[in-house]
Amino acid sequence: MSPRVVALVGGVGGARLAEGLAAVLPPERLTLVVNTGDDFEHLGLYVCPDLDTVTYTLAGRAHRGQGWGVAGETFRTLDVVRELGGPGWFQLGDQDLGLHIVRTDRRRRGDRLTTITREVAKAFGVEHPILPMSDAPRPTRLRTREGEWLDFQEYLVRRRGTPRLSAIESTGTTVATPEVHAALDAADVVCLAPSNPFVSIEPILGLSGVRARLARPVVVGVSPIISGRAVKGPLAEMIEDLASVPPSARAVAARYEDVLDGFLVAPGDGYTSAHTVREADVLMPDAAARAAVARELLALAESARR
Amino acid sequence: MSPRVVALVGGVGGARLAEGLAAVLPPERLTLVVNTGDDFEHLGLYVCPDLDTVTYTLAGRAHRGQGWGVAGETFRTLDVVRELGGPGWFQLGDQDLGLHIVRTDRRRRGDRLTTITREVAKAFGVEHPILPMSDAPRPTRLRTREGEWLDFQEYLVRRRGTPRLSAIESTGTTVATPEVHAALDAADVVCLAPSNPFVSIEPILGLSGVRARLARPVVVGVSPIISGRAVKGPLAEMIEDLASVPPSARAVAARYEDVLDGFLVAPGDGYTSAHTVREADVLMPDAAARAAVARELLALAESARR
Repeated sequence: MSPRVVALVGGVGGARLAEGLAAVLPPERLTLVVNTGDDFEHLGLYVCPDLDTVTYTLAGRAHRGQGWGVAGETFRTLDVVRELGGPGWFQLGDQDLGLHIVRTDRRRRGDRLTTITREVAKAFGVEHPILPMSDAPRPTRLRTREGEWLDFQEYLVRRRGTPRLSAIESTGTTVATPEVHAALDAADVVCLAPSNPFVSIEPILGLSGVRARLARPVVVGVSPIISGRAVKGPLAEMIEDLASVPPSARAVAARYEDVLDGFLVAPGDGYTSAHTVREADVLMPDAAARAAVARELLALAESARR
Repeated sequence: MSPRVVALVGGVGGARLAEGLAAVLPPERLTLVVNTGDDFEHLGLYVCPDLDTVTYTLAGRAHRGQGWGVAGETFRTLDVVRELGGPGWFQLGDQDLGLHIVRTDRRRRGDRLTTITREVAKAFGVEHPILPMSDAPRPTRLRTREGEWLDFQEYLVRRRGTPRLSAIESTGTTVATPEVHAALDAADVVCLAPSNPFVSIEPILGLSGVRARLARPVVVGVSPIISGRAVKGPLAEMIEDLASVPPSARAVAARYEDVLDGFLVAPGDGYTSAHTVREADVLMPDAAARAAVARELLALAESARR
C-alpha cells in the first residue's frame, strides 16, 4: 500500500517532481499543493504561472525544456497587443490565453480558484488533484538593493531575475484553503519539490496552519541546487542575497530545518545533519528520470520515518 | 473643395460606405461616427463589433465577404475556451482578441473609448478619424414576441437573428462625446450608412444633441434594403416586426423622415417623397463599387442641398 503523499510545488522543478510522483502514485494517493505567490494580473487577466505549469505538465501539454507554456504554442494575440503599444514582456500564448480568459472571467463571477483549477485539470484530462495553496492572492514582492519593490514577475521575467535583492515579503491572504488543510491532515508523507524555497515553497509554508501540520507526516525534499548552482532561475543569487550564505543543497535544507526529515541531494552534495541526507541523481530531464527521483524520494521518506 | 462629411455608420454596411467615402475624401474632410449599441462584455472582454469592423475595414485587415473579423484569422484561444467549457458562440479570433484585451485593460484603467479607438486606428495605419458615438455603453436590447429581453449579440449571433421581435430599446448612457458634437457642428454633409436603422443608426440619432445637430447640414442616406430584401442580416424581419410595414427602401427612409434630404436606393426601388430620391447600384461588393456609391451619395447631397 503506497503512502498518502502531498507535494508542495512551485513552477518548473515542482512540475517535474509532480510528473514523477504522478507516474508512481495513483490519483487517490497524491495531492499537489501549488504556490500562488507568483500569480499576477496582467492586461486584466489573472495569470497563475505555477499552477499552469503543473497542470500543463501533468496534462502532457507543456512545452518540453522551456519551463513554461504549452507545446506548439503561437503568439498571434500577443503580436497585436504589441502592435497596439501594450506590454509585450510577458509571453502570453494563444492557447495559454484561453485558460487565462476563462479563469479571469470565472473568478470575477465569484468562483474559487480551487474550483476553477480542478475543472481545468479535469477538462485537460489530469487525474491527480491539483490544489492552489490559496484562493485569494498572496503576491510575493522582492526589494532590490536599490530599494525598489518589484512584483515577482516583474523581477523574474521583465528584469530577467538580474537585480540583486535585499528583502522578500509575501502580501495578501494568509489563509490556505480547507482542501489544503485536509490534504495535509491526511498525509503520510509531505514532499518539498526542488523549487525555489524563497518564492515557491516558503509562501506555502507561511500560510496559517500549514507549518504546524508538517509536524506529524514525514517531510522530505529534493535539492534545487546541484554543485552550488541552481538547476534553473536566479536561486543561487537569492540564497546569497537573502540568506547571506553560499548557494548549496545544505543552504536550501536549512530553510526547512524545523520540519525536514530527509533531503535528496546530487552526488557529492551530501552533508551531515539531524535529518537524513541521501545522494542521488536529482536532475530530471525526462519522464524516466522524474519517476526515478520520485521513487528515491519515497524510499527516503520510508527510511527517514521517525 | 470637397465638403466636410460626417458618416453615421454601423457594422458591415457602415464599413463598406466608410471605405468608399475614405477613398474619395481626405482624412480632414471625413469623420466616421460609429454605433456602440452592439458593444458588449463577453468573457470579461469589452467587445465593440461595429467599431472594429470599421477600423479593420479601413486598415485593410478585414476579412472580405465575412462581414466581421480579421483576414487570415485563427481561433486557437477560442478552441481552449471551448475545451474548458466556456462560451464558444461568439467568434473571438486570436488577432481580434489582442485588440479586445488591450481595450478592456485600458478602459478599466480609465481611458476613454474615444482615445483608445483613435490610438488603435493610428497603430493600424488608419488616417480617417473614427469616433465611437459614446464613451460609455448604450446597449441595445430586443424583446422577442415571447416577451424575453435579449442583448443584441445574443439575438444576432447566439440566436442567429431568428426570434421575431415585439420591441427594441436603448439603455445606458444618452451622452454623445464632445468629439461627435464637434464633428456634426462642422459638417456640411451627414451620410447615413446602409446600416440597420433600428440597431445601428437610430442608437446614434437617439443620443442627446445629435438629432438637433442634423437640422443644418445636408443629410443623405443609402438604403440597406434592395428589392424588399436586406443586403445582410435580419433587417427585413425587423421592419415587419418593429415598424409594422413591408420591408422596402422607403420604409427605411421613413425612419429618418424628419432629417433626410436625399436617399440613394437600388434601381427600381424609387418612390415619391419630400426628400430627393435617386436610384443607383447601391450594392458594394468591392472597393470600386464602394467608391462609386460614395461619389453618388456626395453628388446627391450636392443636388439635395436646400
